[in-house]
Amino acid sequence: MYESIHFASGGRQNTNASKPEVIAALKAIVGDENVVVDPDRVEPYGADAVKEKFPPEAVVFPESTAEMVAILRLANEERFPVTARGGGVGYTGGAVPIDGGIVIGTDRMKKIVELNVDDLYITCQPGLTTYEVQQAAAEVGLMFAPDPASYKDSFIGGNIAENAGGMRTPKYGVTKHHVLGMEVVTATGEIIRTGGRTVKNVVGFDLTGLMCGSEGMLGIITEATLKLLPMPEATSTVRASFHSMEAACKVLTKFTPEGLLPMAMEVLDKFCVAAVEEKYAFGLSKDAEAILLVAVDGSKEEVERNAIVVEQIIKDNGGFDVIRARTKDEEDKLWDVRRAISPSLMKYGTLKINEDVVVPRSKVPELVATIEQIGKRHDTFVANFGHAGDGNIHVNFVVDRDDPDAIARARKCVAETFQLSVDLGGTISGEHGIGYVKSQYLHYAVDKPTLEIMKGIKKVFDPNGILNPGKMFD
Amino acid sequence: MYESIHFASGGRQNTNASKPEVIAALKAIVGDENVVVDPDRVEPYGADAVKEKFPPEAVVFPESTAEMVAILRLANEERFPVTARGGGVGYTGGAVPIDGGIVIGTDRMKKIVELNVDDLYITCQPGLTTYEVQQAAAEVGLMFAPDPASYKDSFIGGNIAENAGGMRTPKYGVTKHHVLGMEVVTATGEIIRTGGRTVKNVVGFDLTGLMCGSEGMLGIITEATLKLLPMPEATSTVRASFHSMEAACKVLTKFTPEGLLPMAMEVLDKFCVAAVEEKYAFGLSKDAEAILLVAVDGSKEEVERNAIVVEQIIKDNGGFDVIRARTKDEEDKLWDVRRAISPSLMKYGTLKINEDVVVPRSKVPELVATIEQIGKRHDTFVANFGHAGDGNIHVNFVVDRDDPDAIARARKCVAETFQLSVDLGGTISGEHGIGYVKSQYLHYAVDKPTLEIMKGIKKVFDPNGILNPGKMFD
Repeated sequence: MYESIHFASGGRQNTNASKPEVIAALKAIVGDENVVVDPDRVEPYGADAVKEKFPPEAVVFPESTAEMVAILRLANEERFPVTARGGGVGYTGGAVPIDGGIVIGTDRMKKIVELNVDDLYITCQPGLTTYEVQQAAAEVGLMFAPDPASYKDSFIGGNIAENAGGMRTPKYGVTKHHVLGMEVVTATGEIIRTGGRTVKNVVGFDLTGLMCGSEGMLGIITEATLKLLPMPEATSTVRASFHSMEAACKVLTKFTPEGLLPMAMEVLDKFCVAAVEEKYAFGLSKDAEAILLVAVDGSKEEVERNAIVVEQIIKDNGGFDVIRARTKDEEDKLWDVRRAISPSLMKYGTLKINEDVVVPRSKVPELVATIEQIGKRHDTFVANFGHAGDGNIHVNFVVDRDDPDAIARARKCVAETFQLSVDLGGTISGEHGIGYVKSQYLHYAVDKPTLEIMKGIKKVFDPNGILNPGKMFD
Repeated sequence: MYESIHFASGGRQNTNASKPEVIAALKAIVGDENVVVDPDRVEPYGADAVKEKFPPEAVVFPESTAEMVAILRLANEERFPVTARGGGVGYTGGAVPIDGGIVIGTDRMKKIVELNVDDLYITCQPGLTTYEVQQAAAEVGLMFAPDPASYKDSFIGGNIAENAGGMRTPKYGVTKHHVLGMEVVTATGEIIRTGGRTVKNVVGFDLTGLMCGSEGMLGIITEATLKLLPMPEATSTVRASFHSMEAACKVLTKFTPEGLLPMAMEVLDKFCVAAVEEKYAFGLSKDAEAILLVAVDGSKEEVERNAIVVEQIIKDNGGFDVIRARTKDEEDKLWDVRRAISPSLMKYGTLKINEDVVVPRSKVPELVATIEQIGKRHDTFVANFGHAGDGNIHVNFVVDRDDPDAIARARKCVAETFQLSVDLGGTISGEHGIGYVKSQYLHYAVDKPTLEIMKGIKKVFDPNGILNPGKMFD
């Protein structure tokens, strides 16, 4: 859906990866059938959800850690770029080989090494989708909590590398809070092991924390041990309309005094409401300037009780057309409005630029109001929705893809929105990462001394800069 | 309580920190009254709970980040060791200046910069005790979840630097799960800023994750932003006896299928039970070979319901003398048994060596049984208790401090216990860290390539090795 306006797609690069003896060596490592060099067949591996194309010289599909080690040793000796790729559905180009070289697809690394019900963890290779991890856990009555919207397509390795977020963050946190340990192959082909199988582990520096969100720049994850939780017995959702975004967001802070920690708190602004209503005629009130969805989970009794409390709090704080789901079906229906946003917004243009800024949640009304002004100032349609409960808002500028002027204006809106988010005490990405798409804005949020430390760490893991070059600060 | 047998205390070292012009410069930075050089007055800053004494050449008490920067710049120019110190109650010598130099006491850095109720965070300096942070949160109806046993004495800066654990880990995780961002001064006197004020933040490498548990070796925390949660309305505890440690630990895995995630699950082995009963006559059954304490929290109704479920599960799985607390007073009483362990164990000797290994929780019975054999083999009294719910067991070898032979035998027991923990899929420290006390055992748990990465990271933050030398792998 997302399309970047920040860079033009590059042509195919030529590095040492294209040398016949290198291709032969790669084939010797993983087998002929697992090295793809045909231009038509490598092309899809040159893009992610950003849709810009930087085709790699080859795509290599290892199956094991030993193969990963051999590939990285070769790449490090021959000094060609290596970009790890999971589902390839990222929004910032993290898996895109903008400097050429090879893409390592983890598609064949789908082994569940151990699923330990008693000790509440799963150890697996990086190529499982997050949905597959969730399913494996669910089959034994457990939950893997992180739930990025892409969960059916994104791989767990990519989710860890991007420290993916999702909707359940207000209660369960983000991906890094659910990773106990990893096996990682560094750029020099060394296998390192971070963390372990236990939540408590204070032996050496926390490389697990560092690897989460490192965007494939420090090493390639070949195995991860993930924390599992008891599967909540039930969920419920309350949906309501409000006369203003401010009123909707004020409610977010009213649950805590009641001891409530909703699992998800999602918001739609008036432009999203108008768009989904026009396209799908849900019957939403014309007075709805914002819509709030609040979900709770837990035992049946707890959910029943908490959903009623949520409903009452919303009613007491200016919510109208309040609907509390009594069944799973009713709950699904309430969420249809949220799911309808992306397709509905395309009536405003052919190019939707979706940013994912984050601010302390009490600042969401000011963020959204100011973004509306930014859009007006630059004559650009903008609609906001997202994870208001944790202040993570998806800001959508919609323009015509054939109008360079409109794109230039949207580019200004994006820059101003990033600066605004930082000024409000937030930052430029809540869950999509930096990749190459946001790298020019990194300095808005990361000062020079901090950046120098990051660059130093990069050198420790990857002295020759072969891993995912051109990303983040590179 | 803990006393190390691993090293002999050192005498006072002499480094450039003792040069008169350095002392004068330190006084110019923080004021005369905040630099202590008198041998009697610096002595207490030469030890932590390990009780071995390595007195620093001076103790310096800055009040601000600017002062911290000036001190570290001076130390880096003059190349003298700097050891940050919070409450000074660690179990592995993390705050002890074993190579001399200065100790930086954060005692004066007690400012609460911001307590944000709506956005659920507190930003503060490192010198508040964890209890003071909890109290500040509680006053506005919020909870700071990490609860190391030392919380009334340990500083929040030290808790972050050690990634402290505690009892509530099964439900709430460890300290690192509650740190949103930090301001850190590196060894070269640069101020870096990690993370931010939001749970979602994927901008650059996660230096917050890396700093948590870095034991003062990468930088000194001058400010931290901590995540707060709604304060649960109620808690309850169920205590029960079992005929074997195995039976007690089997119960730990029975709550998940009911969707329950107890806040705390603590266990005492038969030696602890015998010791506390002999000293305090709680009236525990003679047949109790293990005692289990399980605590739940949440809303009143939820706690009432869940405590009954816990009680039933325990009864169904071999628990006897099962007591469920109906009031806060009753609950406190149940925990008296747990609190009585440490004083009770001292009847077996004058030196108690308390290790804090961790294994996947299903391995606790095997861990404890094998440690009993290790103790027997080396003729050493051993008793185990601790956080069974997350597999974190405190292993106590108790010997006579004047018997070098007994100490040598205990030393063998410790080494074998560490190896055993690693063999069972765990590691050598769950919450106390490595410091200098466990550094000789680090290689049991961290392999060489991983260690090399850690050493490389250390060099990035601290090129001259002035921060907390002699610790972890140094």
